[in-house]
Amino acid sequence: MNLALTNATSPKIVIVGSGAIGCYYGARLACAGEEVHFLMRNDLAAVRERGLTVATPDETFHLAPAQLHAAATPAEIGPCDIVFVALKTTANAVFRDLITPLLHANTAIVTLQNGLGSDEELAAAFGPERILGGLCFICVNRLAPGEISCTSPGTISLGEYRRPATDRLRAIAGKFTRAGIKAAISDNLMELRWRKLIWNVPFNGLSIAAGCVTTDKIMGDPALEAEAAALMREVAAAAAAHGFAISDNFIQGQLERTRPMGPYKPSSLIDCLAGREVEVESIWGEPLRRAKARNVATPRLEMLYALLRSVTAQGSAKTSA
Amino acid sequence: MNLALTNATSPKIVIVGSGAIGCYYGARLACAGEEVHFLMRNDLAAVRERGLTVATPDETFHLAPAQLHAAATPAEIGPCDIVFVALKTTANAVFRDLITPLLHANTAIVTLQNGLGSDEELAAAFGPERILGGLCFICVNRLAPGEISCTSPGTISLGEYRRPATDRLRAIAGKFTRAGIKAAISDNLMELRWRKLIWNVPFNGLSIAAGCVTTDKIMGDPALEAEAAALMREVAAAAAAHGFAISDNFIQGQLERTRPMGPYKPSSLIDCLAGREVEVESIWGEPLRRAKARNVATPRLEMLYALLRSVTAQGSAKTSA
Repeated sequence: MNLALTNATSPKIVIVGSGAIGCYYGARLACAGEEVHFLMRNDLAAVRERGLTVATPDETFHLAPAQLHAAATPAEIGPCDIVFVALKTTANAVFRDLITPLLHANTAIVTLQNGLGSDEELAAAFGPERILGGLCFICVNRLAPGEISCTSPGTISLGEYRRPATDRLRAIAGKFTRAGIKAAISDNLMELRWRKLIWNVPFNGLSIAAGCVTTDKIMGDPALEAEAAALMREVAAAAAAHGFAISDNFIQGQLERTRPMGPYKPSSLIDCLAGREVEVESIWGEPLRRAKARNVATPRLEMLYALLRSVTAQGSAKTSA
Repeated sequence: MNLALTNATSPKIVIVGSGAIGCYYGARLACAGEEVHFLMRNDLAAVRERGLTVATPDETFHLAPAQLHAAATPAEIGPCDIVFVALKTTANAVFRDLITPLLHANTAIVTLQNGLGSDEELAAAFGPERILGGLCFICVNRLAPGEISCTSPGTISLGEYRRPATDRLRAIAGKFTRAGIKAAISDNLMELRWRKLIWNVPFNGLSIAAGCVTTDKIMGDPALEAEAAALMREVAAAAAAHGFAISDNFIQGQLERTRPMGPYKPSSLIDCLAGREVEVESIWGEPLRRAKARNVATPRLEMLYALLRSVTAQGSAKTSA
């Protein structure tokens, strides 16, 4: 395959995994005139009946049932030009079944998933040249089937998998921009992923392990804030061993930006409190394994991973909400 | 004062803090003919009405109301020859109020409390020469007010505070032995305390932090077992920095003896599940502070302490039982 987008001006787009993130980006792209197909399971009947509604601080977007394409199986959709993967990483075992029927020779696959590991899994399954990734800096929630609330639209940062930016990448970013979504492009997707983990590892993790607490409780407790900072330094050391330099200034900035967030619930805490599976492997397990692969000592990350695996398996955290 | 016991053959004994441990030892000493006074608050009415019953695997001991001395205030008891302190360490702020009225010039104070710090607090308040300590290796539970169940009588290990064994220490150990309780004496109380922490730090701590799990879940999860072993090595390093050598063999032995315990609930987990305060400072906080005082890196202990402080403060663990 080549790295050019097929049908670059009017590509056929599919959203695999239509939770809050998938529905948000899909609906906005569709409202901007793109051909977007939603592959969804649980919410399919509701969406076919009532359509999709996305409320943002500025405006509300509505896709009527007649305006949207939603399907329960990839075979109904068939080959597409761009596949956005918005599944939870805990569902990655379904990649082959869900994605294979959506591919033609030149399909681009853009994973919007959290943490580390999905790019490599997709590359191994479908070929590295197909793969791109996006990091969603956004606050978005699914209020009900087909009803999405976005309180902070933020930015989507996009990059090619282990390659500098391409025209394909810029074309995809352009789709987001024309749909009113701030999009940034990067020559280094992996560095973006490590930088996002600098925040997610401590705050998603400690918020669960410290007894289901919001970020203000972590920042308001000197011992927990010190643990957050120490975890950030461990993640930065692991990133550095993989060639991505993350400065102390960046770490300090991540702590400072958390302070005014108030009683914020990180996404993993929301999952945990709702009784949904937590993305333990992609956010803590895979970074830990990559640190170990380069002999970087990350004792806190290692303990946090062991505790989170157990806590989320016990289901104890969710009943303590 | 001198280090001889006043009235060595028939000392006046008081148990301060009459929970499971205090009632167990007090009742057995009283049944063996010692003059034992119980300072108790919550259970006083029940004990005055029905007496104290201690069930062990071998026999049941009963102290009828007419045979026992129980009081709500230390002033009612007055000066004693031996004060056994069996309070939770979370109650140490009451030392001066509860213990001062129980002292004469030569009263010995034996703390049976968990972890580190109580010896020093008692020494600072009442003079180091009064202080002895005991470590209770025992499985004992309070079933109801005045009803104690001991499933494994184990051993009590006794030592002088920062001194080798004395005749006073041997006399007190003899009282236990004559009451049918296995007692050992040591020339090094602090080493005993560190050795007990080798088990208590990981298993009491992880059992709470991993989502309220019994010890078999820790030993059955390779990641958690590895954390337990790593925590043991951190505690051993801190002990070594204070002059107490603890071998890898001892650590391995502590892991091995845990394996056949089955679904055992460490005492701190029982406290946590029952909604009682957990002894966070004496079991994790004080060892951590002593490690830091000698510049010993204990990242796992530090994280565990921060998490346990938060989890037990949230009360979330107890509602997730």
